[in-house]
Formats: sequence, structure tokens, C-alpha cells
Amino acid sequence: MEAYLDNSATTKCSSKAVKLMTKVLTEDYGNPSSLHNKGMDGENYLRDARSIIAKSLKVNDKEIIFTSGGTESNNLALIGTAMAYKRRGMHIISTPIEHPSVANPLAFLEERGFEITYLPVDHSGLIDLKALSDEIRPDTILVSIMHVNNEIGAVEPIKEAANIIKQKNSTTLFHVDAIQSYGKLEILPKKMNIDLLSVSGHKIHGPKGSGFLYISEKVNCKPILLGGGQELGYRSGTENVPAIAGLGVAVEEIFKKFEKNQNQLYELKDYFVDEVQKIDGVSLNGPLDVHGAPHIISVSVEGVRAEVLLHALEEKYVYVSAGSACSSNKPALSKTLKAIGLNNNLLDSTVRVSFSVHTTKEEVDYALEQMQEIIPKLQKYTRH
Amino acid sequence: MEAYLDNSATTKCSSKAVKLMTKVLTEDYGNPSSLHNKGMDGENYLRDARSIIAKSLKVNDKEIIFTSGGTESNNLALIGTAMAYKRRGMHIISTPIEHPSVANPLAFLEERGFEITYLPVDHSGLIDLKALSDEIRPDTILVSIMHVNNEIGAVEPIKEAANIIKQKNSTTLFHVDAIQSYGKLEILPKKMNIDLLSVSGHKIHGPKGSGFLYISEKVNCKPILLGGGQELGYRSGTENVPAIAGLGVAVEEIFKKFEKNQNQLYELKDYFVDEVQKIDGVSLNGPLDVHGAPHIISVSVEGVRAEVLLHALEEKYVYVSAGSACSSNKPALSKTLKAIGLNNNLLDSTVRVSFSVHTTKEEVDYALEQMQEIIPKLQKYTRH
Repeated sequence: MEAYLDNSATTKCSSKAVKLMTKVLTEDYGNPSSLHNKGMDGENYLRDARSIIAKSLKVNDKEIIFTSGGTESNNLALIGTAMAYKRRGMHIISTPIEHPSVANPLAFLEERGFEITYLPVDHSGLIDLKALSDEIRPDTILVSIMHVNNEIGAVEPIKEAANIIKQKNSTTLFHVDAIQSYGKLEILPKKMNIDLLSVSGHKIHGPKGSGFLYISEKVNCKPILLGGGQELGYRSGTENVPAIAGLGVAVEEIFKKFEKNQNQLYELKDYFVDEVQKIDGVSLNGPLDVHGAPHIISVSVEGVRAEVLLHALEEKYVYVSAGSACSSNKPALSKTLKAIGLNNNLLDSTVRVSFSVHTTKEEVDYALEQMQEIIPKLQKYTRH
Repeated sequence: MEAYLDNSATTKCSSKAVKLMTKVLTEDYGNPSSLHNKGMDGENYLRDARSIIAKSLKVNDKEIIFTSGGTESNNLALIGTAMAYKRRGMHIISTPIEHPSVANPLAFLEERGFEITYLPVDHSGLIDLKALSDEIRPDTILVSIMHVNNEIGAVEPIKEAANIIKQKNSTTLFHVDAIQSYGKLEILPKKMNIDLLSVSGHKIHGPKGSGFLYISEKVNCKPILLGGGQELGYRSGTENVPAIAGLGVAVEEIFKKFEKNQNQLYELKDYFVDEVQKIDGVSLNGPLDVHGAPHIISVSVEGVRAEVLLHALEEKYVYVSAGSACSSNKPALSKTLKAIGLNNNLLDSTVRVSFSVHTTKEEVDYALEQMQEIIPKLQKYTRH
């Protein structure tokens, strides 16, 4: 038995997506910029994937810009709009629990004279909407808030935040990092007043190297990769047609049974949450109610180092994550866990369990069994 | 019969590469940043591909930085070193015949206060080494010259240029865009005094979305994509493991029979060059001697618009390119053809024919037959 419960780090690629990718790589391999019909083949794959994705968000096709993944989408959104609007203002608002692909571009902008305000978050990781309202100024050009936190699953009040932003300053742009939420929670950028939205393919059973940024047609954004002017000039470079085609398939599959998938995730999560808390010394972080994402559970285990637990589980083919696994800077303590005020002694004792639509009840049961057996043993070692 | 002669736009992906990619996408899909052994699987694929590539250039593994492709490699090389060295100087030297993924980052840097000198090229597209020597100044931080021009196949005197650069200013860095030459011509960065070298995967039967930048360990380069700090901090974002693994396979295949492949290309090219020139009104651009690449032929056809010829050939399943096909900005006239002083009446009458190691004599014969038949017909229409 194996239980891959690290789906927020990456997911298995859809086999239907892989099948199409194989066809594109070996048969329909034309460069979309070529004028002959092998180039047209490529362009058609892009058009189809773009249309599938645009429909999933109820936006226009031309508002979907393909990138090499979530990190590039976030970099393009933040640096691209900061550069485009810096004459209007140099103030940006974000949170202290963003992914490094948001946090580090913000630090880069700060070095270049931008002022960044980080909103406080409560003990479950939710932002303070009152603080957001207070911080918006005439020179605030951008607010960037993640939809679902990648470590503790907190679902930020995106819709409410958007209303506050637009009420206080109708010119302030709103960027949402939806890398952990797209395909799991409903997102309608136009209805929700979201101007830019980042998505990664490999978190939703699409291929690595795929992703996109929704850029509202009303928004200016400077490109960060310059060259042949592909993707309406927002993103140069020969389009990664096979990966984009694969992403289209993955998106189609997820949205075909969106509610069913979502319910299944919530059920699994509720079950896991109930059971895992019965283990001595286990506590959970992040919201466990409607403000928690359906697929991410942050589990603190008193007296057991995360890495030790991870490797003990790994020996039983149960795969979880220590920290967020989205950073190669492995040993650093989590900024998110610090921001929510987790006890210092638990900072290094927290693992993340994350599900996908392919996760089964059997896998979860098996993982729980292993945790029930392993955790008391490891705690005993620590006590000696 | 079909003749795909647009291999400088993109190539068919190696089936061995696709096979490995399928395995990585569906079985060994771990995120290399994950600490468990599914993550280790991913890291091993990266390590293997990096080692294969480093060997092909006789450089160290850690000097190979994976990117999303040639455009990103060029952007990283130019913007990354410009930002890292701008305190030392703000002068950069390049050529007027670079690919847009070099030309446009240079224009971006020019807007930010850098001074760019463009070296003159002769009628076959070769740079003036004397001019290079004259232009290098104490504040010249970077010289960027492509190895093989993507439109006319001119092979720039990289080795001689490097010697001149290092003699005149030992601190000046040398970047080479090797996107059209890697796998076709020998490149040894350390022996040739090259500090940065850009390569794209999909030009050598690797997958789209793959590529790398060689960065000498002596060089500083600021990242342009910020986040989790992958690729030694040079390139954040979850590594595109399947594409990188596929790229490793493609590189291994090409370098296993490097000389044989190269000779085969030269033979095919010589044959095509001889035959195509027998057609009335046909002339060739770029060097036809040792200074010409083994796989690119620029064919001007008097009295026939490139697009018309391209589509007429396409009807016979012969695929060539009008211009370079690396730009989505399709109707613009070629800067390279202008720079070599091609007659104005031929600027819009030039197609590019490009081979790969998979191109057969039969394909070339078939393409020649079609050209021999079609070109006189099209010329007749024009004359009426």
C-alpha cells in the first residue's frame, strides 16, 4: 500500500493529458509561430486549451496568458504591474504568509523603492479585513493575497477583500495567487473583482512547466520575458504546446465534475481531521471550518520533529511534506506557522498532509494507521 | 510524401525522450523539493540530465541552470548579468542580427540607461572582428554574440571574438546564444572563453519548455524569476522534471553520434545548395563555405513572395519558413536580411530551409522536385 499525501507539492499527471502530450510532442509538433499548417496545428492546441481555461473562470480567452508555471505567473503579475503602474504609485499591500514566489518578488520591488505593507493574520491564518481597509491609500497600486495558503489551507476572504479594495480605491489592482485553490474552490475573477490570478498546472494533475496568469483586459502589465512577442506580448518564447495542451485536458477533467470532486475532498478531509486528532499530542493548524481548504491539513505533533516523522512515514510509503515543499531552501522554519503564532516548540514539528481528487479512503485509512503506530513510538524516543 | 524542413523553428521530439517523460509524468512525479523519496526521484532525474549536458560542454554540473527554454535563457543571461555588474559599467556590445530574445532584452536595458553598441556584419552576416576590438572599453561589462544566425546560418567567429574580448578587457563577460548551434557545432565554453551560453531543448529533438543557461562559476548573474530558490537560486519555480529528463535523453542521443550527425547534415546541405541554385531566379544568402551552419539555408526567389511560396509548398507537404518563425510578429521584414544588405526586392521573397538529423535524402529530393515545379509557375504569375 502507498499513500501519496503530498498533492499540494505536486500531483500525478492525468493519463489523458499525457496521451495528448505524446501526440503533440511526436506528431503535431509545429511551432505556433510557423505560417504553415504544422504551425497552425500548434496554434489550435493553444486556442483549445485557452478556451477551456477561460470557460472555467468565465473570462475571455485573450485574458489567459500561458506561463512556465506558478512562480512565473506570480512574478509576472507582481513585477509586471508594479513596473506598469509605478508612476501612479509605489505602494503594495500583501500578507506575511504568501508563497516565496510572491514574497520574493515583493522583496525585490521593495529594494527598488516600492513600499510593501503586510497585513496581519489571525491564529488560523486569515487576514484582517479591517486592516486591509485602513491600509489602502491613493498610491496603493496593487494588493496581492493568496486564495488558499499552501501550508495550512486557510481560505482567505478574497471576495470581501476585493470589495473593500475597489470601494477604497477603484484604481488599485487585485492579484490573487490561486495556485492552491484553482480547481478546488470556485473562482470567478470578473464577479469577484480580481484583476490578476495565478495558476500552476502541476498542482491539478497537469504537467509541470505549465501554468497561466489571468490578466483582465483592463489591466496593463509589462512582460518580464522579452523576445518574439508571443502571448500578446506578455510572455515571449516558443509556447510550450504539449504542456499547454496537457493542462487543457487536466482543467477539463477537474471542472467536468467540480462539485463531486470538491465534496469528495471535503469528506476525506473531515474524516482525516476527526481521526488524526485522536492521536495523543496531535493538534491541527489553520481553519477547520468553512474557512479551511478541502485538501490541506497542517498537523503538529508534540515532541516529534517533522523531518523524523516524514521519513518514518516514508518507510511505510506514506508521503507527506515538512513545511511547504515548494522551496528548495529546505531547512528554514515556516514563515506561515510563525505568522499564525504557533508555539515555538511546534514550528519544527509540523507536517502537511494534502489530498487530490485521486486520493482514496483506503489511502487515508492506511496513512492514519501508520501515524497511529509511528507517532507514539517517536514520542517515546524523544522523552527518553 | 512529406518534407518537414523547418527544423530551426522546432523539431519533432525524440521518442525515447517522450517515453521517459511519460514515466516521469505518471510514475516518478515527485517534486524535487519534497524531502521524501518521491522528491528524491525527481532530483535524480535533474542530476542525471544536468550531468549529461555538462559533459557535452565539458563544464561542471553546477554550471548548468535549467530554464523554460531559449528565450528565458537569453533573458536571464543578459538582464541577469547587466543587473549584477551595472556598478562596474553599463556598456554592452552585440550585433544587429540577434534573435528577438536577445535584441529585445537589450532594448529593455537601453531604456534603463545601458549603452548598446551593435557591431557591423558583412554581406554574409559575419561580424567585423576589428570593430569588436575597437569597441571594447573599460566599462564594457558584456558582449553577446549568437553562434549561428537563425535565418541565414552564418557561423560567427566565436572563438576569435572571445580571444579579442578577453585580451582587451579581461573582466568583460562573453555570452553566446547557441540555440541554433548546440548539438550541431562543437562548443567548449571553458576552452573558448565563453562565460554564458544559451540553449533551447526543442531545437534538438528535446521537448518544448526545456532549455538551459550555462553560467560559468566565475560569473555573477541575478535571477529574473524569484521564489523558492531552485537551481542554486538562479531560477525559482518547481523544476520541469519531465521536460528536463527528456532534454537529457535528447542531448545524449545527439552527442552519441555527433560527428556522424554533423557530416550527414553537411552532405545534405551541400547537395541541396547545389541543386536549388539550378532553379532560375534562386539565390542563396549567408556563407556557403565553412562559415555556414550545416542545417540552415536561406533561399531568395526572385519575383515570388515568401508567403506565397511557403503556402504553395505546404500544399505539397513541404514545410519551410518565411523569416525565422521564432517571432509571433509575423509580417515584419527580417532585420538580419536587411543587415546583410539583401536587395530590397528580395527581402520579402526569402524562405528558410532547415534540416535536422532526421531529415532524409528522400525528403530533400522531394522538396527540390516541388520547388523546381512550383517556383517557375509562381514567377510566371508575377510577370503577368
